[in-house]
Amino acid sequence: MEVLCAFNPGASMVNGRRLMLLRVAERPIQEKGWISTAVMDAESGELRILRFQQGDPKLDASDPRAIIYDGVIYLTSISHLRVAVSEGRGAFQVASQSALTGSGAYETYGVEDARITRLDDTYYVNYTGVSENGVTTILSKTEDFQNFEKLGVMFGPDNKDVALFPEKIGGKYYTLHRPAPRHLGTLAIWLASSDDLLNWGRHQVVLKPRPGAWDCERIGAGASPIRTEEGWLELYHGVDFRTRYCSGAVLLDLEKPWKVIARSEQPFFTPETDYETGGFMPGVVFNNGLIQVDDDRLELYYGAADETTCMATASIRSILDSLK
Amino acid sequence: MEVLCAFNPGASMVNGRRLMLLRVAERPIQEKGWISTAVMDAESGELRILRFQQGDPKLDASDPRAIIYDGVIYLTSISHLRVAVSEGRGAFQVASQSALTGSGAYETYGVEDARITRLDDTYYVNYTGVSENGVTTILSKTEDFQNFEKLGVMFGPDNKDVALFPEKIGGKYYTLHRPAPRHLGTLAIWLASSDDLLNWGRHQVVLKPRPGAWDCERIGAGASPIRTEEGWLELYHGVDFRTRYCSGAVLLDLEKPWKVIARSEQPFFTPETDYETGGFMPGVVFNNGLIQVDDDRLELYYGAADETTCMATASIRSILDSLK
Repeated sequence: MEVLCAFNPGASMVNGRRLMLLRVAERPIQEKGWISTAVMDAESGELRILRFQQGDPKLDASDPRAIIYDGVIYLTSISHLRVAVSEGRGAFQVASQSALTGSGAYETYGVEDARITRLDDTYYVNYTGVSENGVTTILSKTEDFQNFEKLGVMFGPDNKDVALFPEKIGGKYYTLHRPAPRHLGTLAIWLASSDDLLNWGRHQVVLKPRPGAWDCERIGAGASPIRTEEGWLELYHGVDFRTRYCSGAVLLDLEKPWKVIARSEQPFFTPETDYETGGFMPGVVFNNGLIQVDDDRLELYYGAADETTCMATASIRSILDSLK
Repeated sequence: MEVLCAFNPGASMVNGRRLMLLRVAERPIQEKGWISTAVMDAESGELRILRFQQGDPKLDASDPRAIIYDGVIYLTSISHLRVAVSEGRGAFQVASQSALTGSGAYETYGVEDARITRLDDTYYVNYTGVSENGVTTILSKTEDFQNFEKLGVMFGPDNKDVALFPEKIGGKYYTLHRPAPRHLGTLAIWLASSDDLLNWGRHQVVLKPRPGAWDCERIGAGASPIRTEEGWLELYHGVDFRTRYCSGAVLLDLEKPWKVIARSEQPFFTPETDYETGGFMPGVVFNNGLIQVDDDRLELYYGAADETTCMATASIRSILDSLK
């Protein structure tokens, strides 16, 4: 296997150190004339290599992220989650082993795009589990980022971009989530509530794509919302008709988080550098890891072009001032 | 408005009488050269008529159930739920008014396909809420089938064919549901559990479509599972590659309802009569209303061709004997 990309990290301060959970995408070393990928066997837990001959009329390899063979969809890589830690402001040390690897029936195509939320002195890590059963969100918890307890599928397929609120509101847990309906409806951000983090209900739409805007095609939540005096600040991604991924913000009512107070007319963060406008998936900045270092300053850990992991800083005040 | 169809009833014995909750589909009386439909305004609660000129190049009216205009999907009719009651074994009297009508943001295209489950001396009615936000399942409860309390969206979009188990198992409520994922995965039957009927979690797949079989394209649960000595008997619908809807059965473990004991190799109920093989949607029998009249005998209230409401009887023993 070879590492294809390391991107879309979850992030958190853990015991005074910056910690990322990187999505590490691997694939078999490619042979000439063949396209190959790997899936995890749900029963044995072993990797299984799948090989497809280039030029096979049943093969559609036009999307760099997917292989479609005879109508069946596979991914071109399989991801696991790996810890990287930075002492102070120094470089990140990437662990030599996986922290969280796909297992069971809902993760045969891998685990992706972690979000880390500290709640009640426990770190909850939710991530995307991909398999032939669909794209689901799975909740896990950990104390040390070495041992994870998988708590089951939070939302059935397709659902991703799940961002837990970092505290209870009115006695209930809340989360943002992003169903992807097949027949009707847009790729919008929904809100759900829970008494125990495991069972979720009272689903409602909070934010929809806007026709003609930078976020016209689809939107999805990033990391956990940030509490500010003016409301919950959520940094989300929006995708336009050219599949360009940018970051914008929405401000939600502190007590009634289904109420939108303000929203970015324009993105505050767009693909600009060559590693953002080019690469594996050109034109993508995707942020699901956020560390608040003081009252105003945010560090955004983000994936560029579904390939590399980058960091940017932002001012909460200036983002709030930009909202309408 | 005119009634187009009355079909896909939920059913239950209520105070010793047979009761159906019919799906009544209405549309504006059609004018020559135009196709029109109606949607409920989420704010005002008033019906709004939409008119499309036949032959407009932006109009796609090829599916009898849907109108697609400029990429936006509408339904050709709007449904409400209406009570019909039979004294003894006599004819059903259909109420003159709606029992449950679409309201709010998740029911603007109407409410469809009720399932009735008696739990803790309350009748729970779950139904499909259709709107521009997607196809969701909404839970309501009633004591008298006149006043309904809507309890919110159980499952975000797309999700329908929700069948609650009629009693707790191991201290938890269970339900079957059918997500319709956009990107990956099949139209399969999932199981979820709950402590309170409102919040659901621990989602897992229990039954998938089978390539090449009568249920190859999609499957979905019917009415609530029936307790038998051998397991939970669920009558479900399966759809083949010609969009033919038939009924089959699956037997689930009494204590571990995620375990499949047996399943129909062939459907026990198929479209045969002219009102099943012809009509609004030819080739459809769809059962979501079931009344168990004694230890062995079932009455299946079902929709034929998405148009009419019919009744068939079946023997639990003979269905169980047909499973493999």
